[in-house]
Amino acid sequence: MSNTTGKIFTTTSFGTSHGKAIGAIVDGCPANLELSEEDIQKELNKRKPGTSKITSPRKESDKIELLSGVFNGKTDGTPICGVVYNNNQRSKDYESIKNTPRPGHGDYGWRTKYGNYNYNGGGRGSGRVTIGHVIGGAIAKKLLKDTYGIKVISHVVQIGDILAHSTDIDKIEKEVELNPVRCGDQEAAKAMEELILSKKAKGDSVGGIVETIATNVPAGIGEPVFGKLDGDIAQSLMNIGAVKGVEVGFGFDVARASASEINDEFYYEDGKVYTKTNSSGGILGGISNGMPIITRIAVKPTPSISIDQETIDYEKKENCIINIKGRHDPCICPRITTVSESSIAMVLADHMIRSGFIHPNNIEKTMNK
Amino acid sequence: MSNTTGKIFTTTSFGTSHGKAIGAIVDGCPANLELSEEDIQKELNKRKPGTSKITSPRKESDKIELLSGVFNGKTDGTPICGVVYNNNQRSKDYESIKNTPRPGHGDYGWRTKYGNYNYNGGGRGSGRVTIGHVIGGAIAKKLLKDTYGIKVISHVVQIGDILAHSTDIDKIEKEVELNPVRCGDQEAAKAMEELILSKKAKGDSVGGIVETIATNVPAGIGEPVFGKLDGDIAQSLMNIGAVKGVEVGFGFDVARASASEINDEFYYEDGKVYTKTNSSGGILGGISNGMPIITRIAVKPTPSISIDQETIDYEKKENCIINIKGRHDPCICPRITTVSESSIAMVLADHMIRSGFIHPNNIEKTMNK
Amino acid sequence: MSNTTGKIFTTTSFGTSHGKAIGAIVDGCPANLELSEEDIQKELNKRKPGTSKITSPRKESDKIELLSGVFNGKTDGTPICGVVYNNNQRSKDYESIKNTPRPGHGDYGWRTKYGNYNYNGGGRGSGRVTIGHVIGGAIAKKLLKDTYGIKVISHVVQIGDILAHSTDIDKIEKEVELNPVRCGDQEAAKAMEELILSKKAKGDSVGGIVETIATNVPAGIGEPVFGKLDGDIAQSLMNIGAVKGVEVGFGFDVARASASEINDEFYYEDGKVYTKTNSSGGILGGISNGMPIITRIAVKPTPSISIDQETIDYEKKENCIINIKGRHDPCICPRITTVSESSIAMVLADHMIRSGFIHPNNIEKTMNK
Amino acid sequence: MSNTTGKIFTTTSFGTSHGKAIGAIVDGCPANLELSEEDIQKELNKRKPGTSKITSPRKESDKIELLSGVFNGKTDGTPICGVVYNNNQRSKDYESIKNTPRPGHGDYGWRTKYGNYNYNGGGRGSGRVTIGHVIGGAIAKKLLKDTYGIKVISHVVQIGDILAHSTDIDKIEKEVELNPVRCGDQEAAKAMEELILSKKAKGDSVGGIVETIATNVPAGIGEPVFGKLDGDIAQSLMNIGAVKGVEVGFGFDVARASASEINDEFYYEDGKVYTKTNSSGGILGGISNGMPIITRIAVKPTPSISIDQETIDYEKKENCIINIKGRHDPCICPRITTVSESSIAMVLADHMIRSGFIHPNNIEKTMNK
Repeated sequence: MSNTTGKIFTTTSFGTSHGKAIGAIVDGCPANLELSEEDIQKELNKRKPGTSKITSPRKESDKIELLSGVFNGKTDGTPICGVVYNNNQRSKDYESIKNTPRPGHGDYGWRTKYGNYNYNGGGRGSGRVTIGHVIGGAIAKKLLKDTYGIKVISHVVQIGDILAHSTDIDKIEKEVELNPVRCGDQEAAKAMEELILSKKAKGDSVGGIVETIATNVPAGIGEPVFGKLDGDIAQSLMNIGAVKGVEVGFGFDVARASASEINDEFYYEDGKVYTKTNSSGGILGGISNGMPIITRIAVKPTPSISIDQETIDYEKKENCIINIKGRHDPCICPRITTVSESSIAMVLADHMIRSGFIHPNNIEKTMNK
Repeated sequence: MSNTTGKIFTTTSFGTSHGKAIGAIVDGCPANLELSEEDIQKELNKRKPGTSKITSPRKESDKIELLSGVFNGKTDGTPICGVVYNNNQRSKDYESIKNTPRPGHGDYGWRTKYGNYNYNGGGRGSGRVTIGHVIGGAIAKKLLKDTYGIKVISHVVQIGDILAHSTDIDKIEKEVELNPVRCGDQEAAKAMEELILSKKAKGDSVGGIVETIATNVPAGIGEPVFGKLDGDIAQSLMNIGAVKGVEVGFGFDVARASASEINDEFYYEDGKVYTKTNSSGGILGGISNGMPIITRIAVKPTPSISIDQETIDYEKKENCIINIKGRHDPCICPRITTVSESSIAMVLADHMIRSGFIHPNNIEKTMNK
Repeated sequence: MSNTTGKIFTTTSFGTSHGKAIGAIVDGCPANLELSEEDIQKELNKRKPGTSKITSPRKESDKIELLSGVFNGKTDGTPICGVVYNNNQRSKDYESIKNTPRPGHGDYGWRTKYGNYNYNGGGRGSGRVTIGHVIGGAIAKKLLKDTYGIKVISHVVQIGDILAHSTDIDKIEKEVELNPVRCGDQEAAKAMEELILSKKAKGDSVGGIVETIATNVPAGIGEPVFGKLDGDIAQSLMNIGAVKGVEVGFGFDVARASASEINDEFYYEDGKVYTKTNSSGGILGGISNGMPIITRIAVKPTPSISIDQETIDYEKKENCIINIKGRHDPCICPRITTVSESSIAMVLADHMIRSGFIHPNNIEKTMNK
Repeated sequence: MSNTTGKIFTTTSFGTSHGKAIGAIVDGCPANLELSEEDIQKELNKRKPGTSKITSPRKESDKIELLSGVFNGKTDGTPICGVVYNNNQRSKDYESIKNTPRPGHGDYGWRTKYGNYNYNGGGRGSGRVTIGHVIGGAIAKKLLKDTYGIKVISHVVQIGDILAHSTDIDKIEKEVELNPVRCGDQEAAKAMEELILSKKAKGDSVGGIVETIATNVPAGIGEPVFGKLDGDIAQSLMNIGAVKGVEVGFGFDVARASASEINDEFYYEDGKVYTKTNSSGGILGGISNGMPIITRIAVKPTPSISIDQETIDYEKKENCIINIKGRHDPCICPRITTVSESSIAMVLADHMIRSGFIHPNNIEKTMNK
């Protein structure tokens, strides 16, 4: 019932995994942003399944169609509606779960709440609905890049026990394209891929951690005390299915630290303000400080596994066993990177407008463009 | 600029650390809830400073005054305004920071954003503004308890390297009152207190982790895909100053897990649905599943320390050294527990109304009360 | 930039007159409402052009396609996306107005605000975008009718100087279908039609007044002081293009009245509360009182006329003459009736949920259904 | 339950006629606006009762106290809380209406909706709660004037059958201060005053029409299709108690007009765009066009009259007679002018920020200031 996110730059999402279509309306994008279907398609392509052995084999073209909001190749300030038609549904896979909620999935909550639950493919609870997020995110990313050169990049930093050792943002950006895990450390990527395939072989799945970095965000966005930048980012990331934890900067490591170890000291260089370290992850007191914004999410192992699990049968009112069929990802981290980028890009675009950096109606009036 | 939180049950907060007053307007609380100033005062007392050696020695009575919204001892559906007047300001402590942002604080962002920044006591960035959160939270807690017996309880589970081993919720509820750390494990609490005092002696501070548990929340609250229960909780917790990470259920440990290990299996007992484990922390697909809701926050060490730190001087446009005076908490975890409870209570109250469990206008019309 | 209306039951509209499609996402409609494309189509048919000599001859099938939100013939609580593809655009009619704003139209404001203005067919300022309103309104009307038997009916009460004398709501409902003016008084309807045709013959247009009546609305909806029922209705009606005035109940006639003449006295009958008169139009203090809700809107003559008018030329930076081509309605009142019904129905549906009458998630849990 | 208005520049109102205090929190006002209690006090003084024979004799000092949001004489971007303590309550006047709703008042709706209704002085339904509107409006007016020289001026144009003939805005501004009716036409004012006094002598009351004009509003504010400038204005005006109709520009007179008579033709003068007439009232297609914004409201006669009226008794469940005591205005138009100005000023301030004219955080960054 709450399918709109953002305050000024808003995305309203619709659609289910096995319905006719999935899409989104982006409202509040200022006019005169160059925008084509290709700008969105390339982001959808990063999210779509069937591209490697470690993703679901479901084949979907995920082709974007823009129904409105662009005139003469540029946004015109009116709502932008993007639609992706579904075409590779296999609903019969899901008949068996009609009356038996899958452990680790939202089936039970959806049915309890609404009574009429489209269980096919997990309905609106499916990861496939993040197509809407990516439509919003692709437009947000274009807006951020064209006005302030802001980049938002996600990479996988952990799968199971395997950690990536990647630190240089430019290197990460290139390296993630070179392996199916979307990891910035090629060696770790190889080990991660093997781990994922070994889990897949057992009908099981594995979790991981995805880091997202946003560069060139100016100091001064975020609105305390209830619209802080980190609060809005945490919400948008936790709203992604499978995410069970969100960190900014040093994250949970702050629990073991002293202030003398992690306070970021300020200094001037060429008249500009920097901090010597960035354990705050670019956000202090809910407002950006001009340093890169760094977040991490904990992604749980895909709950759909072909191992017997106990559950209940609504009709028979008794306990039973479920063994899930369908085409699932043994690890969702590689595909979630695009969703994480999109989620953060939508928040940043909204706040860049709300804080007066990007003109709300027409980017040609944006100062310092 | 975003000082209202919630969609139906809303809290609008105002005030600064050293201004005349701090307070909040709670709107959307249904009528006929018994409410007195004492209900709010007891929560404010848990938050207020000066109660032990490990909190700031600032002396504040933090006395609540209700200006509206209660008629004949019960809410009447109109906005409830609660005010706490400040009376122990020592603004001269802050003259020195007028032009030198404190590392780890929001000073720099606030000044950059608004130009006119009330630096006294950290202004609106001060932890003291969470009085507004606690006013909203106290009313939310009363509403949740009187209608559905919902309890929201926070306890400290880690300070530095010291972990608490507390699991029984009823025991925790009692034990937290027995030590100044608000930890449910007396032995750990003693070690935590010593650690905090040792940091204080050095003019330093230490971080920790606070867990919050909500019991009796019915299955079916939360609104996918952008108003999920865990998304809203993550936002509200990350909006608390000093919080750098938020987890639900298994949290970051999911990264190392397989689905077969952490999926919570369902079963019927006496016609009701339960899960055998609760690694999801009571939320699946963004909707509550009837199990206890469990969250944890990573709390950074209070950035105000009396150790020399490098920073900048806005006026002289040069780098300089700052040594922070004032009365600060060597560890904010014990006092943040009340704010964490309040933040989650506000989200739950809002969602209980939004999902039709509590009548939006008059709790006497609430079903299953 | 603000294309979403409503707080819980929301409609987000998109599309332009000559773009690919126009449509809307309705979010927050509770589950288990029986809903088919036909339910929406029949409302769109009342709005569509080309049905009589007094409407625009543009031929559009205005066929609705539902992309999401319905499962097994009933809503499932997820967003409902409805789309109407455009297929009878004649954009060349509009080249001439690219640089010359039409008097009485929004062209100048749109171009000033956004810089990139889709002038074809008036773009997003076209009356055609009310297709989105009607999609939202059709679903709202179905929800209101199926839960509480609430009806929302509009009829034309004035065109130019010709007044209708229609008072009986049941009679009006039938009679409006019998004439192209959608007037509840057949005699007046005939005169109105003649007046409209005479204006059309001169290339001119004429205004009028449309009344809307909602019956069976229970006492108790509306949220003072900033979400009053009449406030929200006034906004939704004034948001319809061409509307320059809104009245509730006695409306502007109250200016000449004394309280002793227009106060509606209360009385009991069979244990229920009524008022002897209804000059308040069913709303007192911003809250419904159980009597029929009565509103009227002043509709200006369609500004597109084929008579020479003075205007400016942006490119040449000089004054010039415009003579508007295209296919326009000589009087928009007959077609605006559906939009007025839709606008009010959306507000009522939203408030019925917000005030606890209709369950927000599942209408089967609605009390007193 | 909806006591917040505005999207970026918001006002959240609280308090009842006979409670401790009435006030408002204004959030989203940018920093560096010079603001003192006096700026608000002078607006409250125009609204307060007891200033002439034609207003209620209730004596209230209505003294504003600012609790937050101003630092060194200027706003600092944090929420501004203003409070007015009540001190002349006479609650015993209202015991008699506890169980008998007053015709023409909201008593019945409030009681039905919330169950626990503070009937004293009409509680939250009292005209006295518009103090909150005036606090928000006073700050909005200051912001509009200091950044763009925008003025918002209301005057009484009709009482009963007596019409004012006032057209020059500068003259009106001065003349309204010269008579207690706040009418820009001294001769009409005298007749109006006599009419009001004659109604008062009979224990009755009379209605009227108030016009509000805003000058210097730039072209380009307002957000189609659901956040149009006229839509938001209509809502804010209809939200004022006693208002039963709202018009923009030509208003209801458009019903009798042809487009050729009322379309406002454009022309250039010194490179700027104007319209020859202003029958649109400065708003076309929901967006301002740079001409003065002109609205009118229909104000009903104060429903509290000391003439016997029929009503019901909730306790006895029978019909009865009520004769209302207390201190009431025989005509509310003169005092409603300030509320009307405030309501429109809040909408304009919000839209000026939303459309990028006024910087959302700091007015020193506002272009063309």
